[in-house]
Amino acid sequence: GFPCKRPENVTADDFFSAALALPGNTGNPVGSAVTAANVEKLPGLNTLGVSMSRVDYAPWGVNPPHTHPRATEIIYVLEGSLDVGFVTTTGKLFARTVCKGELFAFPRGLVHYQKNNGGAPAAAISAFNSQLPGTQSLALAMFAASPPVPTDVLARALQIDGGLVEAIKSKFPPK
Amino acid sequence: GFPCKRPENVTADDFFSAALALPGNTGNPVGSAVTAANVEKLPGLNTLGVSMSRVDYAPWGVNPPHTHPRATEIIYVLEGSLDVGFVTTTGKLFARTVCKGELFAFPRGLVHYQKNNGGAPAAAISAFNSQLPGTQSLALAMFAASPPVPTDVLARALQIDGGLVEAIKSKFPPK
Amino acid sequence: GFPCKRPENVTADDFFSAALALPGNTGNPVGSAVTAANVEKLPGLNTLGVSMSRVDYAPWGVNPPHTHPRATEIIYVLEGSLDVGFVTTTGKLFARTVCKGELFAFPRGLVHYQKNNGGAPAAAISAFNSQLPGTQSLALAMFAASPPVPTDVLARALQIDGGLVEAIKSKFPPK
Amino acid sequence: GFPCKRPENVTADDFFSAALALPGNTGNPVGSAVTAANVEKLPGLNTLGVSMSRVDYAPWGVNPPHTHPRATEIIYVLEGSLDVGFVTTTGKLFARTVCKGELFAFPRGLVHYQKNNGGAPAAAISAFNSQLPGTQSLALAMFAASPPVPTDVLARALQIDGGLVEAIKSKFPPK
Amino acid sequence: GFPCKRPENVTADDFFSAALALPGNTGNPVGSAVTAANVEKLPGLNTLGVSMSRVDYAPWGVNPPHTHPRATEIIYVLEGSLDVGFVTTTGKLFARTVCKGELFAFPRGLVHYQKNNGGAPAAAISAFNSQLPGTQSLALAMFAASPPVPTDVLARALQIDGGLVEAIKSKFPPK
Amino acid sequence: GFPCKRPENVTADDFFSAALALPGNTGNPVGSAVTAANVEKLPGLNTLGVSMSRVDYAPWGVNPPHTHPRATEIIYVLEGSLDVGFVTTTGKLFARTVCKGELFAFPRGLVHYQKNNGGAPAAAISAFNSQLPGTQSLALAMFAASPPVPTDVLARALQIDGGLVEAIKSKFPPK
Repeated sequence: GFPCKRPENVTADDFFSAALALPGNTGNPVGSAVTAANVEKLPGLNTLGVSMSRVDYAPWGVNPPHTHPRATEIIYVLEGSLDVGFVTTTGKLFARTVCKGELFAFPRGLVHYQKNNGGAPAAAISAFNSQLPGTQSLALAMFAASPPVPTDVLARALQIDGGLVEAIKSKFPPK
Repeated sequence: GFPCKRPENVTADDFFSAALALPGNTGNPVGSAVTAANVEKLPGLNTLGVSMSRVDYAPWGVNPPHTHPRATEIIYVLEGSLDVGFVTTTGKLFARTVCKGELFAFPRGLVHYQKNNGGAPAAAISAFNSQLPGTQSLALAMFAASPPVPTDVLARALQIDGGLVEAIKSKFPPK
Repeated sequence: GFPCKRPENVTADDFFSAALALPGNTGNPVGSAVTAANVEKLPGLNTLGVSMSRVDYAPWGVNPPHTHPRATEIIYVLEGSLDVGFVTTTGKLFARTVCKGELFAFPRGLVHYQKNNGGAPAAAISAFNSQLPGTQSLALAMFAASPPVPTDVLARALQIDGGLVEAIKSKFPPK
Repeated sequence: GFPCKRPENVTADDFFSAALALPGNTGNPVGSAVTAANVEKLPGLNTLGVSMSRVDYAPWGVNPPHTHPRATEIIYVLEGSLDVGFVTTTGKLFARTVCKGELFAFPRGLVHYQKNNGGAPAAAISAFNSQLPGTQSLALAMFAASPPVPTDVLARALQIDGGLVEAIKSKFPPK
Repeated sequence: GFPCKRPENVTADDFFSAALALPGNTGNPVGSAVTAANVEKLPGLNTLGVSMSRVDYAPWGVNPPHTHPRATEIIYVLEGSLDVGFVTTTGKLFARTVCKGELFAFPRGLVHYQKNNGGAPAAAISAFNSQLPGTQSLALAMFAASPPVPTDVLARALQIDGGLVEAIKSKFPPK
Repeated sequence: GFPCKRPENVTADDFFSAALALPGNTGNPVGSAVTAANVEKLPGLNTLGVSMSRVDYAPWGVNPPHTHPRATEIIYVLEGSLDVGFVTTTGKLFARTVCKGELFAFPRGLVHYQKNNGGAPAAAISAFNSQLPGTQSLALAMFAASPPVPTDVLARALQIDGGLVEAIKSKFPPK
């Protein structure tokens, strides 16, 4: 559920997190890991309208196309360099390489991705203008929802046959 | 660009649209058509925070998975019945059949779809709490952006090989 | 009171309503009926900022001048045709006839009305950019409040005598 | 039109007004006068979300039932005492006497009024949480719009005959 | 804690306050007193986004430099005349003399002050576009916090030595 | 002035900045330097509601007490460790040591500071939920405004004599 502390019980620790200090485990099919520090972890963020995440990338790892339904994101590259992009509602891709120490913004609600473009691990800090921005991976929303999105809907959307949809679904165990 | 009328020039026509009176052309691969009445069409909507669309569905037609980055949507079924659903950020699918005269809400920014579950045409009216909600089809954002989202990013996100990504892309001519 | 469901208990039904499928009963002095589907009826609308109503009109029926204190409204005519209008804060009336399939927007907080301009029943769907827009009929606010608005205040506002105010009040039993 | 000063040209005078220092002229049928200090008068208020008005009341004068479409109002009585009230969307009247030095709040968009309940002039300062709250008198919106609200709409709303509506209209010359 | 009344229990008294009718006690080192009428005192203000304060000034009294973290303020001078000013984020002072009946606005979050520029008591009403604007005196925030802001931080900020910081702190007993 | 690009001219570079990649020059009396990446530098941030800054700290350097009038801030420590704190409107100091990789949030509008608590340079990234948060140093607002805040106002606020105020002012050349 949602955190709810009475103001008199709040302490400095409620505004603090050490969770982003260490890399997440990128040993997974996409080669990336997101560690969130939002209001569910830091009760002090309640009503403040900000939160942060750390993203780690294995060599050539990808933070796959996703959206944040309730926030704009701005990333700052801690280590390595990333190929990043977002797609506008008119279908234009805005893409760039962003190196260590550089930043890039992804407008509220738009599909975006990052890819480690090098052979060493990379890392970035993401800031959001919401205490609970939410994240929706396009692949997971389509292929790993529970219960599943109907196969014929996906087949028609992607213009592929249903067997292929089922094959892709089989790689994403429903949550 | 964006409309900008001085208040003294505004008339009742700026708050009016006849564009949603007739069905759109659903003769396309997904079997659906969206007709928008937003601030780009009705200058009077500027600053008002509402707009509408009409969605038409061929028999068994699909309005494929998409998001509205800046608005919640609420649909009212004019004709026929629809299988609808949205996916939360925790991966749950909320789905229902919605018949003529019934309504359903899709929360801001979340992936959702509708499918005509019958052999006759269907239609719905959508209302949004934004004068310019934007629409982002997941399939188009991934496979039809211009310039294209890199194939290896999509291959890794969907856990399919690059050749298959290219095959899907070939069905979606970039805008 | 206000609905409050913990997120884990929410289901698709909380985002759904069948209440607007059938005409309301227009057998009343004004010849119109409003059926609301707001957050008090659909708990899922909480925080989403949208709601809908259905308005039915007897032949020549009137949805009398009223305001929505917390929302802009946009109507879509389901059946028949309506004479509609809103009054700006500078006293201009913006009015139009709106036919089946057409839409019209009423800016937040402004006085507006609709009248069925034909001899057959009419109906419209209203969408609001608030989950609880509220409705305040001018006639009811003035003549049917409980306890009543003082007669001398109304007499002076309308520049009519107190006896006439009392006569009008007598037709509006206080709620 | 709307004020638009470049920041480099703004001076302290843009945040200042002397317009509320003196009583307005209450020699009119309702016995009250409103003097506004909003963004149209003070360019510095642009984007700040506040404004003020002064209301003067002749003995027994009335600030007739009205709404502010875009703001909550809070009044502070400078002189005399007032009978004030607002009507909720469920038809309840919240009313009180408010004396010199006391304050009362009128929620956003709800119908409200004030009446000088004494034989000497009264005055109040109103503050709004909008730089341009707008004001809509119920009597003027119904009976003095230009072009006029149709007589039959008003007759049906007030459940009086059209001749009486015309008689009331004749006392309110259209703006 | 925060007020929370169920709507059915709210009465007109929840929107009313007499607390600002009488002068506050200005017998203190700065020669001014603020009396607040915010949501902690008036439960009816909850969600309404407005509140008021009364400020009294002894002859030559000062309402010392302070900010309101969550609101723009607009003052109306009830008695006397004030020298007022606010400092922008680019370091410009916007200052003026404001006399009885005049008003002045202080933008959200900016440092501002008022000083009675005469030998008689003065008074003003402040309105805010927040039901709980908060007030942060610069002197108290720096020198009277509990626990205290470290002396070396203040010494470096003000470019004075630590002994002097301690001397100033000693005049502001921590809250 | 404010940036204003037509959407058709926006490119990926408008969402990108390299300005925070290198340390700022901390050779100044307070031993810290802020480098901003806000909408004045990145036109793409317009309407997005986020921005970032980099803060560098010399050994024992201080980012002196200040406020951001329009934003909450969240900092992520890139290098070194910081003693940080903010003061609430009730005068409580919330303070902590924040080490490399840790984060801390400063609520909107409240006075806060950071101090490098070690003998090596430190650095942090700040994120804001505003594209133009503004910064107001307490010392500069009081002692370096142009024209200056009157000496007697500051003397009374700080309870020190005017000569001492003048001495402090002399160290802060007006902007």
